[in-house]
Amino acid sequence: MARTGNEARNSTRLDTVAREAGVSVATVSKVLNGRADVAQTTRDRVEALLAHQGYEPRTVRKGSKLIELVFHELDSAWAIEVIRGVERVARKMGLSLILTESGDRHSPGSQWIAGVLERRPLGVVLVFSDLTIDEKSMLRTRNIPFVIVDPAGDPAPDVPAIGSANWAGGLTATRHLISLGHTRIGMISGPDDILCSQARVAGYRAALQGADIAFDASLVREGDFHVEGGAARARELLDMPGAPTAIFAGSDLQAMGVYEAARERGLTIPHDLSVVGYDDLQSSAWLGPPLTTIRQPLAEMAEQATLLVVRLASGERVETVRLDLATSLVERLSSAPPRS
Amino acid sequence: MARTGNEARNSTRLDTVAREAGVSVATVSKVLNGRADVAQTTRDRVEALLAHQGYEPRTVRKGSKLIELVFHELDSAWAIEVIRGVERVARKMGLSLILTESGDRHSPGSQWIAGVLERRPLGVVLVFSDLTIDEKSMLRTRNIPFVIVDPAGDPAPDVPAIGSANWAGGLTATRHLISLGHTRIGMISGPDDILCSQARVAGYRAALQGADIAFDASLVREGDFHVEGGAARARELLDMPGAPTAIFAGSDLQAMGVYEAARERGLTIPHDLSVVGYDDLQSSAWLGPPLTTIRQPLAEMAEQATLLVVRLASGERVETVRLDLATSLVERLSSAPPRS
Repeated sequence: MARTGNEARNSTRLDTVAREAGVSVATVSKVLNGRADVAQTTRDRVEALLAHQGYEPRTVRKGSKLIELVFHELDSAWAIEVIRGVERVARKMGLSLILTESGDRHSPGSQWIAGVLERRPLGVVLVFSDLTIDEKSMLRTRNIPFVIVDPAGDPAPDVPAIGSANWAGGLTATRHLISLGHTRIGMISGPDDILCSQARVAGYRAALQGADIAFDASLVREGDFHVEGGAARARELLDMPGAPTAIFAGSDLQAMGVYEAARERGLTIPHDLSVVGYDDLQSSAWLGPPLTTIRQPLAEMAEQATLLVVRLASGERVETVRLDLATSLVERLSSAPPRS
Repeated sequence: MARTGNEARNSTRLDTVAREAGVSVATVSKVLNGRADVAQTTRDRVEALLAHQGYEPRTVRKGSKLIELVFHELDSAWAIEVIRGVERVARKMGLSLILTESGDRHSPGSQWIAGVLERRPLGVVLVFSDLTIDEKSMLRTRNIPFVIVDPAGDPAPDVPAIGSANWAGGLTATRHLISLGHTRIGMISGPDDILCSQARVAGYRAALQGADIAFDASLVREGDFHVEGGAARARELLDMPGAPTAIFAGSDLQAMGVYEAARERGLTIPHDLSVVGYDDLQSSAWLGPPLTTIRQPLAEMAEQATLLVVRLASGERVETVRLDLATSLVERLSSAPPRS
């Protein structure tokens, strides 16, 4: 293989370093590539000589050891749980984690796709966003597999995705409030076009139906999964005639917004208002009062997605590329029987 | 430049694709590299032909567009603020963010250094951890600049680092409690060997001295910056004879631990106990009650560190490589005068 001028110069330098260090060029190369199988004393000697010779870094690297994780937005406590899961698996497998924020909920967009084709990662873990048909095709052409965590839309059946049992989660949250004696239960959903949000609302409706409580559309408000949206929708619910005695907040961040709205109105949680969240973020256990919520195993979902992407990248035929992990109720202090 | 067998095969394929698409090989190459300056219709045609021809991805890439961000641990809300800051700058500059968790507070360790030499990023942003002399030398040999955010130890004067005004923060937090009328003020520090923690304790002592309040060593307990450590130290403080009426928690996570200990003892914040945190994490505004804290501009610190690393990587001579951003008091509802 021929060399560029820079490579040739470096090669001469490597010969000199190897000779002066009394080792082979292969050993110098191992040191440069950070390989572990070189004795510490040799490594130190070679490092010192390299510094002395003014060795210039290579600018060409081989092979992909990158896993790319793509968020539409990073600005929540939610994101760190997913990052931890992907990072854990990547580290175990000797892969590096590339983190990208796309800024668009629906698809990462053309700037991202240009970048990913240049980076050529082993595979891509997408949080929430789906890809357009063109984007999928570009990744497939280059053998870059992708997996969606917690899919927002309704991905085609052949798109690998790791979700959680959203319908069951909505059902469990609402049943919990019904079992405490609530009959007017508000719900703040996520955006209507997001599948996981639709499933949680459907679970809420199923629980009401199972308890023979009539569905009242005015009690369901569309939020945005964020604190401010949760607060705004909670204000609407709390200010209506026949306000609910309990609110299923649809996400922990929205639940924090409900706390804020309740505080503004002098309502004490859970005595005046019960609140149930969804996600079980780390900080939810330290809210005042600690939040009853549906635990969505975000870190585990991210782990599973990363493992799946690695298997796909290795060319393995994987039978099941769609998986929903279980959700569960975490009872804390924000839910109680309604005041009689 | 000579080619490997794989490259030669791909080159033949590119010729075919270019001919069939009626474009130049350079245009096909642009499409492959995700460049934006190709018309959408051409791009689609080339993509389809590439897929048809079974083009194999190149495994050699040129140039470094990577910024590496290294945490010793990712498991807190603290980390997301730093990630957001680095990501914001990286995206603006067309760089990709590599995220690594080293697992060691004091230095990222040999496995990490092996990895970073292989990845050859443009530069490295280290959170908290310093590097060993060997590690610094290895990075310098390869022209990989590094900057430490919120340095834990006492980095050598030539090591670039972006911190915050920790001493002033400790002073401000303690003065705030003194101004409310507290005289028995507990402090939960971070680990004693961490510089920012030492500075916060020194600020606490200076505030006491300025108000002629005698320093009582039994009121200062060493935490670990985490919730559980904060809870354990708060239990000790609250159970001692002459327990403090206020606690400066040294970090927001430790403040959450203080909340837990207070709750266990039936103490209401702020009526029975005032609490001041340090960091101003996103979720601290929604604790019960919302936490009075010292705002440390973590995202801005991370931004500054990233900008600095990029300047250093470009070979620019930078005069000031050490910078402390200002901290400020954020008054919320967890601090009040002591019960008389």
